Amino acid sequence: MSTGAQAVVDAGGEALTRVMERVERRMAELATGHGPVLARYAGDTIAAGGKRLRPLLVCIAAGAPPPETDGLVRAAVAVELVHGATLVHDDVLDGSALRRGRPTVVASGGRALATATGDLLFSRAFAELAGGGSAGAVRVLSRASRELALGELAQRADVFDTEVSVTRYLHRCRLKTAVLFRAACELGALEADGGDPDALGDFGERIGLAFQILDDVLDVSGPPERTGKPRGADLLDGTVTLPLILARERDPELAELDVRTVRTAADAAVVCDQITDTGALATARARAQELVAHAKLELPPLPARQRAALELAADVMVERFA
Amino acid sequence: MSTGAQAVVDAGGEALTRVMERVERRMAELATGHGPVLARYAGDTIAAGGKRLRPLLVCIAAGAPPPETDGLVRAAVAVELVHGATLVHDDVLDGSALRRGRPTVVASGGRALATATGDLLFSRAFAELAGGGSAGAVRVLSRASRELALGELAQRADVFDTEVSVTRYLHRCRLKTAVLFRAACELGALEADGGDPDALGDFGERIGLAFQILDDVLDVSGPPERTGKPRGADLLDGTVTLPLILARERDPELAELDVRTVRTAADAAVVCDQITDTGALATARARAQELVAHAKLELPPLPARQRAALELAADVMVERFA
Repeated sequence: MSTGAQAVVDAGGEALTRVMERVERRMAELATGHGPVLARYAGDTIAAGGKRLRPLLVCIAAGAPPPETDGLVRAAVAVELVHGATLVHDDVLDGSALRRGRPTVVASGGRALATATGDLLFSRAFAELAGGGSAGAVRVLSRASRELALGELAQRADVFDTEVSVTRYLHRCRLKTAVLFRAACELGALEADGGDPDALGDFGERIGLAFQILDDVLDVSGPPERTGKPRGADLLDGTVTLPLILARERDPELAELDVRTVRTAADAAVVCDQITDTGALATARARAQELVAHAKLELPPLPARQRAALELAADVMVERFA
Repeated sequence: MSTGAQAVVDAGGEALTRVMERVERRMAELATGHGPVLARYAGDTIAAGGKRLRPLLVCIAAGAPPPETDGLVRAAVAVELVHGATLVHDDVLDGSALRRGRPTVVASGGRALATATGDLLFSRAFAELAGGGSAGAVRVLSRASRELALGELAQRADVFDTEVSVTRYLHRCRLKTAVLFRAACELGALEADGGDPDALGDFGERIGLAFQILDDVLDVSGPPERTGKPRGADLLDGTVTLPLILARERDPELAELDVRTVRTAADAAVVCDQITDTGALATARARAQELVAHAKLELPPLPARQRAALELAADVMVERFA
């Protein structure tokens, strides 16, 4: 867990710490409880960790301290499993060799195993959630999963398209990332007495959008030691994101750029520098900060401690990239 | 729909016909209701049809005539969507160009789009089922989906392994195919007043096993005009199935065969003839027929009309391959 996420857990006190420990334990059980093949591939994915931001959002959207129910742990685990499934499939599609500094499933097991592993994580997520007995929760996660897949399709449809608008870009970010943050918050709110899934869902969607924008900024700014991937990886994949969209309005040379000509890490570094020189990264960051501010502003009436935890989580989204 | 499946529908009378029409209408809605990208890829998959055996099993497991509930249609659609999702992903893994005589999603849209399309069909299935509000139904389908993925993993793990046992082969068939037939029958039984999901699930699993065995026999026997694929496609993929397992016990030359050396359609045809000459196909067919007989014998007490429909469906599994 990142120091930022740890700060959120600390703010939630012992009850939040205990729930997040239960989430980790359940993830570890799932990583080892399904025979040797799953243990190797799906297990690696689950155990590899990551920041556990989405489970954390589930828990604090349920309250701070959260109610310690089975359903909450199930929901938190299910969201992280869906996240893991999409990462595994994305890595297949991108042919990525490394994620979080470790070999991807597709790199170590091949495309076939990685595709099946993603499917397995996916169905495990729904099994986990359905085990809690809430059809409403399943609906929330299945809608989000469907939108994640549409987001992947949308990104592929837009590949190499430099004419993509900010609106279209944000639509893609919503589908690709923000819908799962929304689902995390909705699922948490569903577990709370008198929770407000719609309002907390809006909060989740806004910070999810900010998260994706800042991730796209980081792809341009680097440094690689921090991101674990070369600068301009999106450009090399043909994915046009907010920094380039904004920079094209400011630099006629970038406006003429055919992304297909960006073939090497060196090419990508040159374009990243050009984008940075336009000031587009600062504008994109500001856009993300506005979204976070808006998310905090529109939070519904909540107990002070829960509000503080959610606001802190929102700030963590931004600080991660500061 | 095949003539066999149509006979089952006819036996179920007007009520079954009406429900199956609703299933088709809902499938058609889903094929066109999700924007141009889904319309093209997922829509093609959904609309391409196939025999609709699994939705039919859902409906007759619920009764003959079945209760005409929303939940029943949702369950039937969900099972077929999961089936479609696994086909799309299997075609990605196998690099298949054709299915049911039409280009596969991976052939027309590439691996990336096909992977995302499968994910989308998958999540759409759970959304459809969860919309009916039954967490029990979601559990049944998510368990089956998870096992389908494990089946795909198991088949990949066994690739080129001629030493695979009949027990291991049947285990793979169960995971790869029979679990979804089981789920179809369980889901139907869950929709019926006083339905017996366990007993009907056992029935579904047995006829699903028979279905897979006979599919594997057909891969060896052909003819290609009927199966829509060259004889020995499994051999060319390195998948060792019951006909070869049995034939190896009878023909020392086949016992020595390294499946990696089967590289062309002509190689595969020679091996298929060798397998046929051992009589292994007849033994495998007999094994499937035993399973179907067992499935019928162990049916729980049911109204005469429903029993007749289920028995007819079981026979259709066998007759398809007669």
